[in-house]
Amino acid sequence: MGRQQVSANYRGYRTAGIRLSEELLPHLADRPEALDQIIQPIHDFDKAHLVMLVEEKLIDRDAGIAMLLALREMEKRGVEATRNETGGGIHSGEQYLIRKLGEDVGGRIHLGRSSGDLDEIGRRMAFRRHLLELFPLLLQFRQTLLRLADEHAETVMPAYTHGQNGQTSTFGHWLSMWAMVFARDYDRLRSFYERVNVSPAGAAIMTGSDFPLNRARTAELLGFSRAIPHTMDAILSHDLELECGAVLAILGSDLGRMGDDLMLWASTEFAMIDVPDRYCVTSSIMMQKKNPAAPQEMKALAAESVGAAMLTFVLEKGPTGLPILERRTAERAFWSVFSSAKQCIGDADDLISALIVDKERMRSLAGAFWAQGTDLAGALVREKNLPWRTAHQIVGILIRHCVERRIMPYDVDSAMLDEAAIEYMDKPVGLSAQAIRNALDPVHGVSLRTLFGGPAPSSARRELAGFQKQLESDEEWLRDARSHLANAAKTLEASIDAIVRR
Amino acid sequence: MGRQQVSANYRGYRTAGIRLSEELLPHLADRPEALDQIIQPIHDFDKAHLVMLVEEKLIDRDAGIAMLLALREMEKRGVEATRNETGGGIHSGEQYLIRKLGEDVGGRIHLGRSSGDLDEIGRRMAFRRHLLELFPLLLQFRQTLLRLADEHAETVMPAYTHGQNGQTSTFGHWLSMWAMVFARDYDRLRSFYERVNVSPAGAAIMTGSDFPLNRARTAELLGFSRAIPHTMDAILSHDLELECGAVLAILGSDLGRMGDDLMLWASTEFAMIDVPDRYCVTSSIMMQKKNPAAPQEMKALAAESVGAAMLTFVLEKGPTGLPILERRTAERAFWSVFSSAKQCIGDADDLISALIVDKERMRSLAGAFWAQGTDLAGALVREKNLPWRTAHQIVGILIRHCVERRIMPYDVDSAMLDEAAIEYMDKPVGLSAQAIRNALDPVHGVSLRTLFGGPAPSSARRELAGFQKQLESDEEWLRDARSHLANAAKTLEASIDAIVRR
Amino acid sequence: MGRQQVSANYRGYRTAGIRLSEELLPHLADRPEALDQIIQPIHDFDKAHLVMLVEEKLIDRDAGIAMLLALREMEKRGVEATRNETGGGIHSGEQYLIRKLGEDVGGRIHLGRSSGDLDEIGRRMAFRRHLLELFPLLLQFRQTLLRLADEHAETVMPAYTHGQNGQTSTFGHWLSMWAMVFARDYDRLRSFYERVNVSPAGAAIMTGSDFPLNRARTAELLGFSRAIPHTMDAILSHDLELECGAVLAILGSDLGRMGDDLMLWASTEFAMIDVPDRYCVTSSIMMQKKNPAAPQEMKALAAESVGAAMLTFVLEKGPTGLPILERRTAERAFWSVFSSAKQCIGDADDLISALIVDKERMRSLAGAFWAQGTDLAGALVREKNLPWRTAHQIVGILIRHCVERRIMPYDVDSAMLDEAAIEYMDKPVGLSAQAIRNALDPVHGVSLRTLFGGPAPSSARRELAGFQKQLESDEEWLRDARSHLANAAKTLEASIDAIVRR
Amino acid sequence: MGRQQVSANYRGYRTAGIRLSEELLPHLADRPEALDQIIQPIHDFDKAHLVMLVEEKLIDRDAGIAMLLALREMEKRGVEATRNETGGGIHSGEQYLIRKLGEDVGGRIHLGRSSGDLDEIGRRMAFRRHLLELFPLLLQFRQTLLRLADEHAETVMPAYTHGQNGQTSTFGHWLSMWAMVFARDYDRLRSFYERVNVSPAGAAIMTGSDFPLNRARTAELLGFSRAIPHTMDAILSHDLELECGAVLAILGSDLGRMGDDLMLWASTEFAMIDVPDRYCVTSSIMMQKKNPAAPQEMKALAAESVGAAMLTFVLEKGPTGLPILERRTAERAFWSVFSSAKQCIGDADDLISALIVDKERMRSLAGAFWAQGTDLAGALVREKNLPWRTAHQIVGILIRHCVERRIMPYDVDSAMLDEAAIEYMDKPVGLSAQAIRNALDPVHGVSLRTLFGGPAPSSARRELAGFQKQLESDEEWLRDARSHLANAAKTLEASIDAIVRR
Repeated sequence: MGRQQVSANYRGYRTAGIRLSEELLPHLADRPEALDQIIQPIHDFDKAHLVMLVEEKLIDRDAGIAMLLALREMEKRGVEATRNETGGGIHSGEQYLIRKLGEDVGGRIHLGRSSGDLDEIGRRMAFRRHLLELFPLLLQFRQTLLRLADEHAETVMPAYTHGQNGQTSTFGHWLSMWAMVFARDYDRLRSFYERVNVSPAGAAIMTGSDFPLNRARTAELLGFSRAIPHTMDAILSHDLELECGAVLAILGSDLGRMGDDLMLWASTEFAMIDVPDRYCVTSSIMMQKKNPAAPQEMKALAAESVGAAMLTFVLEKGPTGLPILERRTAERAFWSVFSSAKQCIGDADDLISALIVDKERMRSLAGAFWAQGTDLAGALVREKNLPWRTAHQIVGILIRHCVERRIMPYDVDSAMLDEAAIEYMDKPVGLSAQAIRNALDPVHGVSLRTLFGGPAPSSARRELAGFQKQLESDEEWLRDARSHLANAAKTLEASIDAIVRR
Repeated sequence: MGRQQVSANYRGYRTAGIRLSEELLPHLADRPEALDQIIQPIHDFDKAHLVMLVEEKLIDRDAGIAMLLALREMEKRGVEATRNETGGGIHSGEQYLIRKLGEDVGGRIHLGRSSGDLDEIGRRMAFRRHLLELFPLLLQFRQTLLRLADEHAETVMPAYTHGQNGQTSTFGHWLSMWAMVFARDYDRLRSFYERVNVSPAGAAIMTGSDFPLNRARTAELLGFSRAIPHTMDAILSHDLELECGAVLAILGSDLGRMGDDLMLWASTEFAMIDVPDRYCVTSSIMMQKKNPAAPQEMKALAAESVGAAMLTFVLEKGPTGLPILERRTAERAFWSVFSSAKQCIGDADDLISALIVDKERMRSLAGAFWAQGTDLAGALVREKNLPWRTAHQIVGILIRHCVERRIMPYDVDSAMLDEAAIEYMDKPVGLSAQAIRNALDPVHGVSLRTLFGGPAPSSARRELAGFQKQLESDEEWLRDARSHLANAAKTLEASIDAIVRR
Repeated sequence: MGRQQVSANYRGYRTAGIRLSEELLPHLADRPEALDQIIQPIHDFDKAHLVMLVEEKLIDRDAGIAMLLALREMEKRGVEATRNETGGGIHSGEQYLIRKLGEDVGGRIHLGRSSGDLDEIGRRMAFRRHLLELFPLLLQFRQTLLRLADEHAETVMPAYTHGQNGQTSTFGHWLSMWAMVFARDYDRLRSFYERVNVSPAGAAIMTGSDFPLNRARTAELLGFSRAIPHTMDAILSHDLELECGAVLAILGSDLGRMGDDLMLWASTEFAMIDVPDRYCVTSSIMMQKKNPAAPQEMKALAAESVGAAMLTFVLEKGPTGLPILERRTAERAFWSVFSSAKQCIGDADDLISALIVDKERMRSLAGAFWAQGTDLAGALVREKNLPWRTAHQIVGILIRHCVERRIMPYDVDSAMLDEAAIEYMDKPVGLSAQAIRNALDPVHGVSLRTLFGGPAPSSARRELAGFQKQLESDEEWLRDARSHLANAAKTLEASIDAIVRR
Repeated sequence: MGRQQVSANYRGYRTAGIRLSEELLPHLADRPEALDQIIQPIHDFDKAHLVMLVEEKLIDRDAGIAMLLALREMEKRGVEATRNETGGGIHSGEQYLIRKLGEDVGGRIHLGRSSGDLDEIGRRMAFRRHLLELFPLLLQFRQTLLRLADEHAETVMPAYTHGQNGQTSTFGHWLSMWAMVFARDYDRLRSFYERVNVSPAGAAIMTGSDFPLNRARTAELLGFSRAIPHTMDAILSHDLELECGAVLAILGSDLGRMGDDLMLWASTEFAMIDVPDRYCVTSSIMMQKKNPAAPQEMKALAAESVGAAMLTFVLEKGPTGLPILERRTAERAFWSVFSSAKQCIGDADDLISALIVDKERMRSLAGAFWAQGTDLAGALVREKNLPWRTAHQIVGILIRHCVERRIMPYDVDSAMLDEAAIEYMDKPVGLSAQAIRNALDPVHGVSLRTLFGGPAPSSARRELAGFQKQLESDEEWLRDARSHLANAAKTLEASIDAIVRR
């Protein structure tokens, strides 16, 4: 008998005695766990490709029907389990069909395809799935941030630069800043989604096929927005892997920086926020410890995601078509980052909602370290028509005096300010005690920041409405993207029905 | 006399004796060369801010006129030179005005601003300028790639995966693949441009000001699309630095991978392309050497740009407002990458146009290593109705035989194919000699790849029209972006005219 | 009854109702799989710490005996399984002992320790184990390279720079180059081993303990070279994590670059080497393909290891003691890189031994692209006393002529050389045909490279002896390191015996 | 006249009309500023190579003398200036000599060399120089840290993990931790120095030369420890570039993490240290600000150095001999990192000496957040023979009570502790008020940490002596390394003298 295996034992096209004389060393083959994220997409592609082949009369209709029915039978037994059992990796569909239906039938599924488009379909549909799981979490998190930003629009706290108290702001303003950051992350991820959600099906490995495949049809059946209009670009360009690494690294870094804020503000010395006990570990030796765990998870995501991006930039370097097998390494890193990111955003959302905010402490710190210096200088400009720089310098001298003499802001009086003015410009400024007190009051200071985008509660709340609108339009987009996919899935099943029903 | 310096000697707000008692160590201050890319943007901001302050009646009109006239005078002497001479770094405008007009006038310019929005304006306008210089180069390069893709639509060559001849394609198809890659790079850079081209002006350092600045007006005068609706987000979010690093790293890596293709194909062993001598160096010892220099520049850009991205991801880690002075290090890296990228894209454009393509060698390699195996199996499917997998395996055996026996593709005959078929399935296939010859002809094989996106000249040229259209719409966008800026510049000058004319 | 749990149900020190009021969210706790690599080291530490506590009379001898016996019983049931079953993560020892022996006995093991030294012991001993598994593979690989370098000392091939044939060398010289590279990798890894193999035990979390622990004794029992003389440095410095990332990234990159050489030389166009079929995959569509898989695994390691290094550099950024929980993320990355590296070095060793070297092709390529130009110029210097530069330029002109006229090296004659000489310096050089032929003979050219370190077989073989010696001394070091550990393990068991025997 | 240029106009070997027909595009050539760091090393190599050529009688003695004298004359005019003026980049020596002495003399210098060894000599000698400038700064910094560690051995402060007060330590212990970290950095840099300080001279580009160069002699004259025993390894291995990137990234990250500590502790909320005004900037708007600048420089170094490492890992990826011209990009990054590192270590040394330490604040924070919980549990173990875990849990409950009831540590009494004990184990512990007070006293707690490596002043000072010894031995090594180079320089000049003297 010839080298053709008895179909029931078919072990795939790469067996010794065809092109190559030796079996592949087993550890060099893909392991099932390397493929777990792309096996369902490949199953869908198997079905869509068959539908298209039958519709275009590229394979015998009866063979097509037999294969489609067999794949549906597989679904009853469980796609992933059956495929892993059958072996064959991304070619598990063909392997299953040949074993079950013989090579004369099952050997027809792969017409016009290659491992190239199988892998690329798998990768793009896995990206798509992960993104569609990530998007609602991100939207929910943004919603939480906006809700809390409104609640805390009047929660006065210090704002920092260089790790030093800088000015007075509100906790709500900090929250809505992050809402804007994650809105941009959403945009970046959505652009990536749109670039990735185009179909390589039918591009085979780079030149497509000399059979007249209907690539638009397969694209439609798999829910892609369209077929990629270039077969080599579809498979060998790889810039989307780099973009995936990049957008996840930015998202991860943003979450990490937010985690850094939380860790700092929950420190014993800052003590502005408290993390509920369920998010905290303690120590096996320092029993007093209450260590916030969830923010460290956010920081870990920053590291993991930047590492994965770097991995990908290194991996993809080289001539077109040279990094091929290596790409599994990038995939593995991506699936891990996506999974960590989803967990982490969910946790961050819970955590931020549950945060115990010590408003009193925040306000007290806001007033303790001269963060109202700018306001006092502003008062001098407004009431005494001093040039800004003159006012700034006089208050600078005043504060140096106070620091040297250990005078606290609420103890400043007109005479001290005049002393500084005289030191600077040989004459007093005569600002009233009331004006000084007002200027140095953190709550008052914030309430004056009504300019566009400012932290004054009135101003901040006005802008929140706009941010909410953007969020809703992002939700709308997501609903559309999801319903597009749901419709495609229905169309695929309906098309199979139409074929097998005859 | 007080600490107020005689205005003519004004050395900036950070002098010993105001808030701090010692002078700053000189080497810790910004050096002029660190600011060279942002000094013109800051000049523009100085002007726009003054116009807004006067229009909103936040400063005395006469002081405003005097300052605007002084800045115009500075322009006659040269902005950068005068500012460097004056010192003061990003505050060189104020320093110049105070020295020239006295603190009572010049001390009024900084009302409502901070180093924060100065730096951020500088950074964003510098990003904008670099992008606007980079865009036309990228468009031009894409145009060249499309033009050459048309010219070489029939230049048959091998296509590679795993570094092995895989299938037959055309040089034109490879060229248009890169046109698509760089179209996506353009998209990514444009999205970044749109996210960055919003105005932080008036956000000061994070809470804006208690003076009612008209942020929309300043944004308009500086050509931004709008004011950022959140003052803390405007200054302290920093995710756009990460995005800048990321999009440049993707662009650089894409150029690097193209450079890797060129280096490989210009190697003595591949010898499919030849790089004109003016792009080549030779060796001080191996005088036969003709080393392509320009593609190595492309590869160097990949390394430099990824390095800058990673620098930024490390640098920006930490709580909000903590990395501040460090950001100069990222800026320096960015300006260098932008400058390398512009040089490199221009060179790549020239080089690719000037490339000497050895069509004969390409076609000969295309036919020498069995890259038509897929086509032969396709013929068996079409003409003998074999299942794909059966055909694939038979041809696999045939090729093993030929490799073992050192038979070249053009020497394959029906008997050999039948021998393989018998070995596989115990019966011959009986494909005619003519059919075999056709299938193994590289030019013929390519001409059959007419499916959507395929390399067949007819198909490829059809899609080129679509790519050209996309390119034109991208050019249109750029024209709009530029004219928006040009109009803003005119508006700024006209507004100054209106003020100084009284 | 009090909050003290019935010991049999002891769930660890972090239960609700002690310091914290809520249970930790389960997904924020370490999962067993995160600890699999450090659980055995922690078991060893549990034993060694107990021995030391008993010997120093810091705990009651009977309690010590009971705990040591219980841990030995655990060993019979399987350490990892029992500990995972028991729960408690790195504190599974204590949890097991308390459940089994009651808190009054088992609650005594943790005296003077912290999660800090547990984790650090786990990490350092896991590094140690991985390194000790990696070293023999690396030594074996170097041995293989040296053996083959000797075998191929006369296998003439081209040597490349800029991807162009440069000069003539031998395959053996290339092989011994890699032996030297991996010797340096060995050095770097050994230095890391020596820096890491010092004991943090007893440093607790950073300040040690107010109990007089005998840190030297614990260090000895665990096979460390000594105790770290600084308790905070032992736990919170973290530069060794950075070093681990760095040395693995260098090793991985070196293997990756070697893989790149192999991929290039196995390409259809270079075809200098052939990879045995068992290391190759083929294609589901391009049945002619023979894609080397193992070198791509080497290249994947480069990407993975650099990604892990970057991850660590990002992760460790921040104030002392701030990145703590995040470190599990770096560990996970390291264990994966170590495991990939071991697999990859073993495969590279097998592959390089099994490589099919096409000596004829190598030699033919060596002579085909003027890689002997340097030799011809050398002959002119030697025989005609021309200055090097003059000779170099004349041969440069000659080669340009030949390339233009499609003359191959073996067809060059004296007249052509004289034509070039006249073009350069207006007079002929008169080198004999024989001298020209000799100079352009690749084999002859290599045989003259007898200088120190050169590729001439005689010279290369002379140096191989020295490389072999270095290898043997590295093997000696490894034997010592291993026997040190074996002895420590014996001492530990003997010390337990001595205690439990009473 | 022939193509030989009139020597006076000699523009280097790569002129149009020799091997290549067109001039190189000017911007693709090395610019002088790209070579500034390696031009002096290349000058030295020019001299040493000539000495060796004359001594080995490989060139005419008279020509050798003429060239050596001309190079000495160049030294009088200034090596860098003359070479830049002359052009020719790394071949400026030859270009100068040919212009000055004619090709018949000057054309003889390059015998047996290549751009390969020129570049590699330049790179290695530049690494060497930078390291030798960096080493004393690092030693000095370590000395400062040890000196201050002694001074602050009794300066009690909190020690942190997870950003929370953990235990009591001393500022001195923190300082000596960094001394240990930088000692390891010194080790890593020294290992790199030793690996890099071996001579590639005479390896030419990879196969050396067929002239019997005395490579050992050139190595000696240039101060290398020996000649690299493999010509291809000498030029094309490139793992030392990776190592350079790696060791600088570790050093930079260590300095960055120290900078992060300083920024945190100088924050308004921690306020444990104060940075002298000369290291601080203030704000153009928030005049109260005192922003530490120098620690941000340290943090910037972390980013810059990691970026340079990643650049190099990307750049060096690819087959042997393929990344060549790109390497200038890595060099530029390295010189910048070395220069930043030297500046930064000097500044860190100054800063740390000048730091204003608020001992009172440190001690007060040390006692305010229960960082003595461990000590109190220890007291229960010691005095009441409780198992550690029982003691730990009881104190955990006590602290929860206190936190809930806002009781400060110094207000804890025996009854409260008994309440917790009863809650835990249904009975009181009866620890005396005095014992509690002692245990909760930070100074007392530290004084008990006398174990090996602990922070107790007595223990810490004992280990400082050992650290000092290691420092001295490192200084000794540096002295030797420097005197080795100084001697080599003398030998080189003496050898020239011996030749020119005839």
